[in-house]
Amino acid sequence: MNHPYAFTDALKRPLPASLAARLRERFGERFSTAAAVREHHGRDESPFHPIPPDAVVFAHTTDEVAQVVAWCAEHAVPVIPFGIGSSLEGHLLAVHGGVSIDLSQMDRVLAINAEDLTVTVQAGVTRKQLNDELKATGLFFPIDPGANASLGGMAATRASGTNAVRYGTMKENVLGLTVVTAEGKVIRTARRAKKSSAGYDLTRLFVGSEGTLGVITEVTLRLYPIPEAMSAAVVNFPSLADAVKTVIETIQLGVPVARSEYLCEHTIRAINAHSQTTLREAPTLFFEFHGTEASVKEQAELVQQLAREHGGQDFEWATRPEDRTRLWNARHNAYFACVQARAGCRAISTDTCVPISRLAESITGARRILDTASFPTMLLGHVGDGNFHAVLLIDPDNAHEVAEAERLNDEIVRLALAMDGTCTGEHGVGLHKMGFLVEEAGDDAIELMRRIKRALDPHNIMNPGKIFQLDA
Amino acid sequence: MNHPYAFTDALKRPLPASLAARLRERFGERFSTAAAVREHHGRDESPFHPIPPDAVVFAHTTDEVAQVVAWCAEHAVPVIPFGIGSSLEGHLLAVHGGVSIDLSQMDRVLAINAEDLTVTVQAGVTRKQLNDELKATGLFFPIDPGANASLGGMAATRASGTNAVRYGTMKENVLGLTVVTAEGKVIRTARRAKKSSAGYDLTRLFVGSEGTLGVITEVTLRLYPIPEAMSAAVVNFPSLADAVKTVIETIQLGVPVARSEYLCEHTIRAINAHSQTTLREAPTLFFEFHGTEASVKEQAELVQQLAREHGGQDFEWATRPEDRTRLWNARHNAYFACVQARAGCRAISTDTCVPISRLAESITGARRILDTASFPTMLLGHVGDGNFHAVLLIDPDNAHEVAEAERLNDEIVRLALAMDGTCTGEHGVGLHKMGFLVEEAGDDAIELMRRIKRALDPHNIMNPGKIFQLDA
Repeated sequence: MNHPYAFTDALKRPLPASLAARLRERFGERFSTAAAVREHHGRDESPFHPIPPDAVVFAHTTDEVAQVVAWCAEHAVPVIPFGIGSSLEGHLLAVHGGVSIDLSQMDRVLAINAEDLTVTVQAGVTRKQLNDELKATGLFFPIDPGANASLGGMAATRASGTNAVRYGTMKENVLGLTVVTAEGKVIRTARRAKKSSAGYDLTRLFVGSEGTLGVITEVTLRLYPIPEAMSAAVVNFPSLADAVKTVIETIQLGVPVARSEYLCEHTIRAINAHSQTTLREAPTLFFEFHGTEASVKEQAELVQQLAREHGGQDFEWATRPEDRTRLWNARHNAYFACVQARAGCRAISTDTCVPISRLAESITGARRILDTASFPTMLLGHVGDGNFHAVLLIDPDNAHEVAEAERLNDEIVRLALAMDGTCTGEHGVGLHKMGFLVEEAGDDAIELMRRIKRALDPHNIMNPGKIFQLDA
Repeated sequence: MNHPYAFTDALKRPLPASLAARLRERFGERFSTAAAVREHHGRDESPFHPIPPDAVVFAHTTDEVAQVVAWCAEHAVPVIPFGIGSSLEGHLLAVHGGVSIDLSQMDRVLAINAEDLTVTVQAGVTRKQLNDELKATGLFFPIDPGANASLGGMAATRASGTNAVRYGTMKENVLGLTVVTAEGKVIRTARRAKKSSAGYDLTRLFVGSEGTLGVITEVTLRLYPIPEAMSAAVVNFPSLADAVKTVIETIQLGVPVARSEYLCEHTIRAINAHSQTTLREAPTLFFEFHGTEASVKEQAELVQQLAREHGGQDFEWATRPEDRTRLWNARHNAYFACVQARAGCRAISTDTCVPISRLAESITGARRILDTASFPTMLLGHVGDGNFHAVLLIDPDNAHEVAEAERLNDEIVRLALAMDGTCTGEHGVGLHKMGFLVEEAGDDAIELMRRIKRALDPHNIMNPGKIFQLDA
């Protein structure tokens, strides 16, 4: 089958009956081969046709994960870690079959070390749950990829999102991990010290490894004091270029904005339709400022001044929580509003990221490419980092649209690569971007990745078939 | 020989004559086997007895490094990258013999991308040279480990220093590297985008790998706008505990201090003797604040208030560059002043880092351990990160003092490990901390590091014998 969203499962082998029996005996109802359960675990938020695993285990502890992996290793059966299923590039499809380890019931916050500004959680804790449980401490965890993803999944894909422009990505905010290796051993990748030069950076090796090197079962994260003051601002621009120039100058001046998001006029139109609002359907920037009262005011004034120089208008500024929420609602609902702009569609999201000086060129280039599309498209994203998403609303059953979407995606990625940018700022490679990764990293760098994979997972059981071809 | 600072070179084999001839023909006077040159390249700032390499090549380009490594690989001859020789844990000793590749003449700033807040340099560029060359841009590179180290060396040891509390370490500030692999291939570990989820994080794998996985030949770094305002503050305390509590609360409140350094009364005494100053010989904190005029003032006021609550006195605050320099001179001269406090001594520096809430316990514990010493000792360091250095001034030819120093060092490290801290916050492992690393990381994590090493350097030619025992 040649449909670009139908990946092959030709390497799938049946689950050995003896392994299934062992797992069933050990996990009882937490072991499932039911079709609906398997189907749910063989898909993510991408438009790709699901490829279910052969079985699903719902784990409760690191030791249970280690047991499952050790047994799977004995049988050379693949293991695919599963958080909440919100990844976007086919990370979860069981292209080699095997056992999905669902970590969503590993949802305990293990240790809040408020006085150290750290927290340790089981991998299935979601970011919203974490922030709820932190409420009494005056601390928060800023990384916000939109979806209420699991923190293990966010670590595994090196996620980031709207706050990364100020607080960094999972790479900067994971202090250490507990990982089950491909042999079923349990390691901690680092101590809780804020910095360390003690040997190879295993933490950063597992962050972004997409389940291909081991199963992340616990995550220690950096926390931040909730800022004394927060404010939000929204401003419209005559053109995309004006909006983007405002962002570029904001970053170049070193204004420590907490969020700086772009929504195109098509996105605003979708939001107006979705939320019955009457926002001006123009290129729009959303800002959030964190700091002391004085510094937040200062930041907002600086940004307003920059915006004005680029034709910004309708500058709205809000400091009270309810007003901030109202202002930002549009941004928070953007993705869902976009998806609902076309009935029955699936959304494909590009994810390029370029050096900030190339952002205007990159995003106006993307706009030009999208203007040729035969289906609705939107542009939005984390422009303060040089990262944005083109959202392509296609009918996944229409082969022409699928092919066209992939072609447009290719063009947008190639444009970013030509600007020394990356094919993926925060979504990861999964199945979808394996070709782009080769272009981006080069064969010799991919060869190092292959060697690391073979060294840590000699029988290729950890989420096999993802990120790069192992045998090239 | 059993002297703890005399490492064995029993694995040294003579340099193959054919390799020496090839290198001499290719590099002419930039290839040296002179005793003085070899001796200089077989030592660092540690007190360890030098073990010279068999030859030194002064490289000018990445391609030259690749050529040297490829030839050494053919002969299975070790390669040791050399920056300026300021490492502290025996990183440069040629315990297996081989060729030292001196990168200090690779000192060109290759591309200042001011509008992207990035710069790409050859590995031999030092941090001071970089900041000199950046002067016209209004940008700076903040990482400051004290020594005027090469940026390649700083990446290789995951260095940090006084500014890390605000700007992070080399881990956070290296965007990408050009690396010569153990086969002599040249790879780039990442594009220039600020964030990426494209495959394994090869950048972070090489940062901190201490030359054991490849030779870093070019470094792309993040830059920052020079703050609109900077100010410095110095404040004395009745006790170590008072000073440290002030720092802990500063961090816990989220005050974005740019530097927060502790000097003990012994250090101040050494500085007074060295610089003919009359500073009060008391536990002292040095702060630096970066931001807008208003935010710098606000930060200083907050810190002053916290300091007062802990008995802080003589709060001095300076905003003019010359006054800031005068205030901070004591801190900048601290290490040299310490070393000169005892004629003919060598300084040994511990480097533990603990979660911030354990800092008081960790540093007062260290003080108690040091109080038993038969030689002068000082405490100073980057307390805002939970990282400090005990400086032990020993006569390296006195076996008793050496043994005593190693025992005190052991005790201080064990104390940090018991607090979920690390044996090395920023100096690296080298030869000296290989034992501690096993305690800290555990055998199973070390085994992953070994596998990565074997996978990327199958013939063990890249700075062999460092960080961990390869055959355990």
